[in-house]
Amino acid sequence: MELFDLGDFRLRCGATLSGATLAYKVHGTLNAAKDNAILFPSFLGGAPEALEAWIGEGRPLDPSRYCIILPGHFGLPPTSSPSNTATPYGRGAFPAVTIADDVVAQHRLLTERFGIEALQLVLGWSVGGLQTYEWAVRYPAMVRRIASIAGAPKPSPWTRLWLRTVTEEPFTADPAWRDGFYADAADLQGAARRVGHAAALTLTPDTFYREGQEMWRPLGFASADDFVVRFWENFWLALDPGDVVAQARKARAADPAAGGDLAEAVGRISATTAVVAFTGDHMFQPAECRLDADRIRGARFHEIDSAFGHLATFSLSAQDVKAVDHVLEELLAT
Amino acid sequence: MELFDLGDFRLRCGATLSGATLAYKVHGTLNAAKDNAILFPSFLGGAPEALEAWIGEGRPLDPSRYCIILPGHFGLPPTSSPSNTATPYGRGAFPAVTIADDVVAQHRLLTERFGIEALQLVLGWSVGGLQTYEWAVRYPAMVRRIASIAGAPKPSPWTRLWLRTVTEEPFTADPAWRDGFYADAADLQGAARRVGHAAALTLTPDTFYREGQEMWRPLGFASADDFVVRFWENFWLALDPGDVVAQARKARAADPAAGGDLAEAVGRISATTAVVAFTGDHMFQPAECRLDADRIRGARFHEIDSAFGHLATFSLSAQDVKAVDHVLEELLAT
Repeated sequence: MELFDLGDFRLRCGATLSGATLAYKVHGTLNAAKDNAILFPSFLGGAPEALEAWIGEGRPLDPSRYCIILPGHFGLPPTSSPSNTATPYGRGAFPAVTIADDVVAQHRLLTERFGIEALQLVLGWSVGGLQTYEWAVRYPAMVRRIASIAGAPKPSPWTRLWLRTVTEEPFTADPAWRDGFYADAADLQGAARRVGHAAALTLTPDTFYREGQEMWRPLGFASADDFVVRFWENFWLALDPGDVVAQARKARAADPAAGGDLAEAVGRISATTAVVAFTGDHMFQPAECRLDADRIRGARFHEIDSAFGHLATFSLSAQDVKAVDHVLEELLAT
Repeated sequence: MELFDLGDFRLRCGATLSGATLAYKVHGTLNAAKDNAILFPSFLGGAPEALEAWIGEGRPLDPSRYCIILPGHFGLPPTSSPSNTATPYGRGAFPAVTIADDVVAQHRLLTERFGIEALQLVLGWSVGGLQTYEWAVRYPAMVRRIASIAGAPKPSPWTRLWLRTVTEEPFTADPAWRDGFYADAADLQGAARRVGHAAALTLTPDTFYREGQEMWRPLGFASADDFVVRFWENFWLALDPGDVVAQARKARAADPAAGGDLAEAVGRISATTAVVAFTGDHMFQPAECRLDADRIRGARFHEIDSAFGHLATFSLSAQDVKAVDHVLEELLAT
C-alpha cells in the first residue's frame, strides 16, 4: 500500500486531522493523456486488497488497459483511523468523519498526486457504493461512469438500524470499550464475535442456512456454526473495534445531499450509471436500489439473482462474480 | 391467572422442579361431555393474556361455544421460571426446560384438573407453534386439529442463530449477568434495550421501515426510532432477563423428534392441520412452513400476504387478524 500525505486535513465536521493519510494501491499504468483511470473504493472493513479479485487481464477491470486505483477510506488503517491517529484526535476522540471526507481526500489524491481530471469509472460495493454516489454528486464533471454494487447513495432506515445494532452497540456497550480508550483490542474479542453472529444473521438471504440449501457448504465450511466462527467472527476479529465503530458511524451518516433533498442531489448525477443489487440483500434491497436508479437519468438497474445477498460483497460466488463482470463490461463499453 | 400445582415435576433433562407451577386462564365453559376445549399456548415473553385479542363471540375462538384454555409455559412467570423458583434451581441454576416439558405439564393440567380427553384445537403463534406441534406428535389421540401460526415443529438454523444472537448473548455477555445471578434485573436494562434493537432489525419484513412504506406510522409511532424504543425496548424491558434466556434456550432446543427423524415424527401427526405463514417472516419463512405442511397428511398451508412478517405475532394488523380468523374458522368447520 502507498500512502498519500493529506497534510492538515480539514474534515466536514470542523476538526482538523494533522498529518492525515490516505492509503491506496494502483494496478495498471496511467496513460499519457491521464484518461484511463478507474477508482474503486472499498467497503466497511474491506482493505483495498480485498478488491483485487475483480482485477485481471481480459476482464472488465483490465490493468493492461486501465489504471485502477484502490483507495482507502477514513477509519480503515493505514488510512487515518482511530487506531493510528495521534493525540488529541486518536482512539475514542477520533472525529466524526464522513463519506464526503473520504471522497474529498480521494479527489486530492487523484488530482494532486496523479494529475487525473477525468475518471472512466468509479465503482464500489456497499460502503464503497456510498462513496461512489458521493463522487458522482460532488464531482460530476470528473466522473464518466459509476457502478454502485450492493450499495446506495444513503443507507435506508433498516440499514441505519443495522449499523447501530450490529456493528456499534456490541462494542460500545462492552465495559472494556471505555469510551473507545480500551486498554487492548483483545479485551473486546467477545464483542467482536457477537458482531460476527449478528452479521451472520442479517447479511445473508433468508434461504442461506436453510436445510437442503446450506450455502456455507460449497464455501468449504463443515457446518453453519463453523461458517459463523471461521468466516464471520474472523472477519471482525481482524479489525480494530474503534476503527469499526468509526466506519459504521460514517456509513450511517452518509448523505450526498448533506441533509438536503436527496432526490434532487442524486438527480444531478450526469455519469452513465449502473445500479447493481442482489436478490435477498436486506442491506441494499433490490426494490430500493431500483428507486435509486429511477432517480438518475439513463441509469440502468440490474438485479442479480443471487443466493448470497449482501454477502456477495465478499465475492464468494463464481456465478455472482460473472454477473457483475458482465454489467461492468457493458458499462465500460458505453 | 389460575395456578396449577405440578408438585415435584420431573423434567426431560432429569432435574426435578419441586412445587412446580403452571399458570393458565380459561375463557368459556367446559361442556358436560368435556369435548369443547381449545388449547392456545403462548409465545416467547407472551403472557397468556396477550392472546385474548383472538377470543370473542362470533369469532372462531368463541367463548360461548368453546372452552378456551390459555396455558403458560416454563420460563414465563407465574409458571415456574428462573425468577420465581427457589434454591437450588432458581435464577442461573434453572434447569434446561424443553418444549416437551411444557406440553407434558399442560397435558397434566388438562387431564388432572379438567378431565379433558380430547381437544378440538391446539393452536399457537411462534414459540406457541413449537408447543402446538409437540402436542400433535406427543398426544395424537387427544388432538383433533392444530394450527401453527408463524411457527414450526423445530426452529430453522437461522432461527436458532437468532435465538442465540438476539435474545441470549446481549444478556449473557453483560458483566452484570453474573451467570444468571445478577443483583438486579435493572442492571441489565441496557442489554434488554439492545435485544430490542436486534429484534426490531430482524422480526419485520425488509419493507417495514422503507421510506414511503413506514409501517410503524399506522401503529401510532412518530418515527422508526420511536417504534424501536416504545414497542421493542419496552417489550423486553418488561421481562426478567433470566426468564428470557430460559425461554430462548428452550425454543432453540425444540424438537418433537427428540433428536430422531423429524420428518417421521411430524409424519405421524393425525390432527387436521393448518400451517399459517406470513410473507416476509424471516423467523418462520413461508417456504419452510410449506415444507412442514407437506410432511403432514392432509395439512393445508396458508401464506398470509402481510406487511408485518413475524411481527404479526403481536396482532397489530387488522388485515392479518382477519386472515388468520378466516383460516381458524375454516379449520374448526372441518
